[in-house]
Amino acid sequence: MNRVAVRPTGLRPSPAQALRRFGFLCLAIAFAPMTVFADEGMYLFNELPTKLLKERHDFDIDQEWADRLRLSSVRLNSGGSGSFISSNGLVLTNHHVAFDTLQKLSTPDRDLIQNGFLAKSFEEELRAPDLELNQLVSIEDVTERVNAAVPPGTSAEEAFPLRRAAMSTIEQESKDETGLRSDVVTLFGGAKYHLYRFRVFDDVRLVWAPETSAAFFGGDADNFEYPRYNIDAAIMRVYENGEPAVLENFLRWSDAPLAEGELVFVSGHPGRTQRIFTTDALTFLRDDRIPFLLNLLRRREVLMQQYSLKGTEAKRRARDDVFGIQNSRKAYTGMQAGLLDPRVMAEKRGRESRLLAAIQENDELRELASAWEEIAAVQKEKRVLLPQTASIRTSLAEIAHQIVLLGEENLKPNDQRFREYTDASRESLLRGLLSEAPIYADLEQFKLADELTRLAESRGADDPLVVELLVGKGPRQRAAEMVQATELFDKGFRQSLVDGGKTAVLASSDPLIRMARLLEPEYRRLRELNDRLEERERQAYAKITKATSAIEGTGGYPDATFTLRLAFGTVKSYQQDGETIPPATTFAGAFEHSDNYVGPEDFQLPSSWHLARSRVNLDTQINFVCTADIIGGNSGSPVVNRAGELVGLIFDGNIQSLTSDYLYTDTQARAVSVSAVGIKEALKNVYQAADLVKQIGR
Amino acid sequence: MNRVAVRPTGLRPSPAQALRRFGFLCLAIAFAPMTVFADEGMYLFNELPTKLLKERHDFDIDQEWADRLRLSSVRLNSGGSGSFISSNGLVLTNHHVAFDTLQKLSTPDRDLIQNGFLAKSFEEELRAPDLELNQLVSIEDVTERVNAAVPPGTSAEEAFPLRRAAMSTIEQESKDETGLRSDVVTLFGGAKYHLYRFRVFDDVRLVWAPETSAAFFGGDADNFEYPRYNIDAAIMRVYENGEPAVLENFLRWSDAPLAEGELVFVSGHPGRTQRIFTTDALTFLRDDRIPFLLNLLRRREVLMQQYSLKGTEAKRRARDDVFGIQNSRKAYTGMQAGLLDPRVMAEKRGRESRLLAAIQENDELRELASAWEEIAAVQKEKRVLLPQTASIRTSLAEIAHQIVLLGEENLKPNDQRFREYTDASRESLLRGLLSEAPIYADLEQFKLADELTRLAESRGADDPLVVELLVGKGPRQRAAEMVQATELFDKGFRQSLVDGGKTAVLASSDPLIRMARLLEPEYRRLRELNDRLEERERQAYAKITKATSAIEGTGGYPDATFTLRLAFGTVKSYQQDGETIPPATTFAGAFEHSDNYVGPEDFQLPSSWHLARSRVNLDTQINFVCTADIIGGNSGSPVVNRAGELVGLIFDGNIQSLTSDYLYTDTQARAVSVSAVGIKEALKNVYQAADLVKQIGR
Repeated sequence: MNRVAVRPTGLRPSPAQALRRFGFLCLAIAFAPMTVFADEGMYLFNELPTKLLKERHDFDIDQEWADRLRLSSVRLNSGGSGSFISSNGLVLTNHHVAFDTLQKLSTPDRDLIQNGFLAKSFEEELRAPDLELNQLVSIEDVTERVNAAVPPGTSAEEAFPLRRAAMSTIEQESKDETGLRSDVVTLFGGAKYHLYRFRVFDDVRLVWAPETSAAFFGGDADNFEYPRYNIDAAIMRVYENGEPAVLENFLRWSDAPLAEGELVFVSGHPGRTQRIFTTDALTFLRDDRIPFLLNLLRRREVLMQQYSLKGTEAKRRARDDVFGIQNSRKAYTGMQAGLLDPRVMAEKRGRESRLLAAIQENDELRELASAWEEIAAVQKEKRVLLPQTASIRTSLAEIAHQIVLLGEENLKPNDQRFREYTDASRESLLRGLLSEAPIYADLEQFKLADELTRLAESRGADDPLVVELLVGKGPRQRAAEMVQATELFDKGFRQSLVDGGKTAVLASSDPLIRMARLLEPEYRRLRELNDRLEERERQAYAKITKATSAIEGTGGYPDATFTLRLAFGTVKSYQQDGETIPPATTFAGAFEHSDNYVGPEDFQLPSSWHLARSRVNLDTQINFVCTADIIGGNSGSPVVNRAGELVGLIFDGNIQSLTSDYLYTDTQARAVSVSAVGIKEALKNVYQAADLVKQIGR
Repeated sequence: MNRVAVRPTGLRPSPAQALRRFGFLCLAIAFAPMTVFADEGMYLFNELPTKLLKERHDFDIDQEWADRLRLSSVRLNSGGSGSFISSNGLVLTNHHVAFDTLQKLSTPDRDLIQNGFLAKSFEEELRAPDLELNQLVSIEDVTERVNAAVPPGTSAEEAFPLRRAAMSTIEQESKDETGLRSDVVTLFGGAKYHLYRFRVFDDVRLVWAPETSAAFFGGDADNFEYPRYNIDAAIMRVYENGEPAVLENFLRWSDAPLAEGELVFVSGHPGRTQRIFTTDALTFLRDDRIPFLLNLLRRREVLMQQYSLKGTEAKRRARDDVFGIQNSRKAYTGMQAGLLDPRVMAEKRGRESRLLAAIQENDELRELASAWEEIAAVQKEKRVLLPQTASIRTSLAEIAHQIVLLGEENLKPNDQRFREYTDASRESLLRGLLSEAPIYADLEQFKLADELTRLAESRGADDPLVVELLVGKGPRQRAAEMVQATELFDKGFRQSLVDGGKTAVLASSDPLIRMARLLEPEYRRLRELNDRLEERERQAYAKITKATSAIEGTGGYPDATFTLRLAFGTVKSYQQDGETIPPATTFAGAFEHSDNYVGPEDFQLPSSWHLARSRVNLDTQINFVCTADIIGGNSGSPVVNRAGELVGLIFDGNIQSLTSDYLYTDTQARAVSVSAVGIKEALKNVYQAADLVKQIGR
């Protein structure tokens, strides 16, 4: 299931880095000869694969079609994608993308995750406490301006602040000029920089969500598997000035079932891929980074399970965490399995060798070969940096961390701040910082005790920072004290610290603020080391991109960056264990899957479905697969047909798509979608939401 | 819950090392002044604390009383303790100690773990496939003979094989002479060596076990907590020549409830403690070893949960693994929490400083101070060795490993073999190797894939050994191939390899045998490094024991070694969060606990209990606590009163006993037992086993 992962390292990642997902089992990977695969690619909307689509699928992409699709697509700050589906502000996304909001809107008496939700009127729609939707309104190439700020031959140490300053200045100017959210996006690992301008929607309300047992039918066991039978969908609505937003661009729905071979397009926000990675970078991922992250994820999984054992209410509170952690753990496990298949690395190594050989033949390109050595050298330093941490990850500890950093960063000129603390990023930052989403004291304490333990493990319990944090107590006792004494639960208190800036932070005796201050210098030290390594990688990958384009030609696509991309493919069955897996499933299959399985509760459809069994048209398509090139962050992406009509909603990749972080194949790898006709059928005949159905697509 | 842990490191541990358990939460540790605490101590049966018992409890321990208790006590090779409770061979132990056997005797149609078991006649009693019970019949001090084999000044490298040879020779001579199982036990970290002779019972049959929901009521959540309400008991019977064994020594049962302050004794097999550890050794445990083991345990916990999701039958197959892993994980978590409390380390450091200061004052002892430096130096090497592994841990992979080692070790003179491959150990080794316990192909494959992945993570996927093992496939595909092709499921095949020795092993093309052969040299290299470090520790701890005895006096007890010990204490309430926790619970409490809890299924008593609710005397004691000094391995130990009558059955320690691996306290720390009267009440009125009750104690 495509989804935001827990933030894995000691350093806070950018939104794009935060995204992660992958398939599970490595059964057998079938290789095609090494060229760009048939439907590979996550293309930029300003560099569309016009020629490729014409040649391969006889499709003429026209600008109006593409603009409408782009303007109907949205990015959610909770880490997924979505689309506008009506003129009166309706937004379609995955249930699992909405999960974070469902959790925040739930209470012991109103468990939206367990029971689902349907607003019968505008008044009943529930406002999400901190959701932000971004609609991409323009793209501008600013590569020259960003690179002009960094004279050739500048060291990584000097280059990083110069480049960061240039990007922040461009963003600020754009924001001042247009009033739009403006982000400079690093593409092709640092070869290109584009300025993206977004219209921001920050009043987002929940309209409909099914029960989790229907949305996530099959649970952790079926996650990343196929065939599937999941209504992994939710509908929200954007508001402006307290009224449903009036939208010019939205997707109409197709009412036709999909057929084998049909061409479809995916417009969404793939989070991060590593297709450009050298084999040294992949080796670091395989042998160091993924094992490290899996240890961390398993630690959190077991911790949250322990917390959940306290009872039904605890289980409810932990549910979003548990789901997110399990999803990431399964994703990384699959990604690791792929990298551990010697054939995958051989494939990558083979391509790299051919490329390097070609570069050696070419007088102009020869000097670019050093970039591979530079990447190798950076991996060695990353290996040392990987386990080092000065971060404590709980809701309140992260709020405290951000408040402390904000106080300090605010005193600097805008272009010298960390990128997430610039004036242009301020609005989004404060949305999280001042959210009214519930924070549970017992859960905070439980997590904080483990985070203090983790810090002690990672730095050694005799480390001066650890000793100072624990003030002579054990982690559990210290966590209990801190959570009892902190005032950060109170949004007004947070606001006062934000308003009071560094002076207020320094004056505060709040234990979590004090903890964040203690950790701050070490956090900055580690972050600077990390930023410098990333800058070195950017410079090296810019060279690698140059070499690759020169040898293999241009017209490609950059690695995913959690920005809008167009992918395409066909609805397509595949072979597995000697069987043909049909491209689509139906409601009949869902009921059968539920009937046949003897096991955990995850395989029980909700009572609403059993009650509706006779009403539902059992032949209606519910899920389907296609060959489009997707990845984590694509969750909730609309799938459209040649006519630009919505036919589906991306929600997962199958197990064979496990390599797609670093290697696309279309032999068995498939993107998995909810069928648009399936969503309508469920809305009409299971959830009896006739009024909502009437609004859709018009 | 006291229990065998998964074997944690790359090296195969001795039985004693395999034992592990600990309490969970570190709430607040109350310290008494540093002397030996009131009821501290796990005493040797040949060095009983006669004076202490007289002074403290006015109890005259007489030899006959002690002999009867010793000869009524048994050790189970599955990792716990037990006692003889009738003249016709009945053995009482914990349900969780019998769990391994229950799992092995269960099938999809006869789920003893879920449903419990009661034999209505001798004929119905079920023979355990590979259980061995040891009754300690004599103890002899062989310190001088063992030390005589190692001339003073011998390096650790040379000393280790010399000492090992001496021990193996003593054992072999004893076995030849007496026919009894003979083990030389290392005590006080290497200061003393005692020869233990055991009568072995290898025909052990299951008589009664309750449902797991009664035995492990409260599940993982209540584990290591108190108050408790668990019938964590099972009854087996030893047979000789196909008939119930006729026993001279067995425990009579007390029918009286226990009262606050009553003196009780525990006779059992504590697995391993680290009370002698220097602070450097504890620091290694805290900062390196425990975090490493917890990562491993969480990995296995999540893996087994994933497997369990496949369905009800998979869940049944994985249950023993899941239980054991969760128990160990919770134990280590508690142990870690204690070590991370700066006051615990300060306590240990304080005592150590006083000791070292006293040594410096004493001309004869001064040179012994170097032992502390030696321990510190060894820890540094252990840190490097810790993550290195050449072991694959699945049932079949371990069988293959043992067969390969056996073939090789058999060619050596008996006294030069690894200790577990000597002639004296042969019988026990083969019992496991040729067991008929079921091994499930799908579970084997699932585990093997993860073990190959773990090996690749730990050594790097480009490590030649890993590359050779994977033969160009991913871990999952390779695991599938190997499990499909191996013949090791077949006991006859195993027998033929054992009989054929090294020649048969070398000729075998079985993929798991080949894997074990590939891993063998690296396994030997790592084991030798480890053995050498342990020898250096033994020599250093022998010096530390000498110094400690000289300064603090003798009459103490050695760290636990999974051999028989006598502990004592009083039935005693304690204070927690301002409340007095009463020393005993009743059946009424069990029903209340079940009624009040809203949460997971672990808190539902079985239907047999609900049906019996009106029959049971609700005031009967079910569990109680006492101050006796126990640890993992003590599970199933009989608790007796001054008259030597059985009053209880150890099954757990409370959360505050978490420090007892390295620091005993009796302020809040308590051993938790099932009441003998509670077991009888359940047998009579829940399980309607009147016939069985009649046999008990006579």
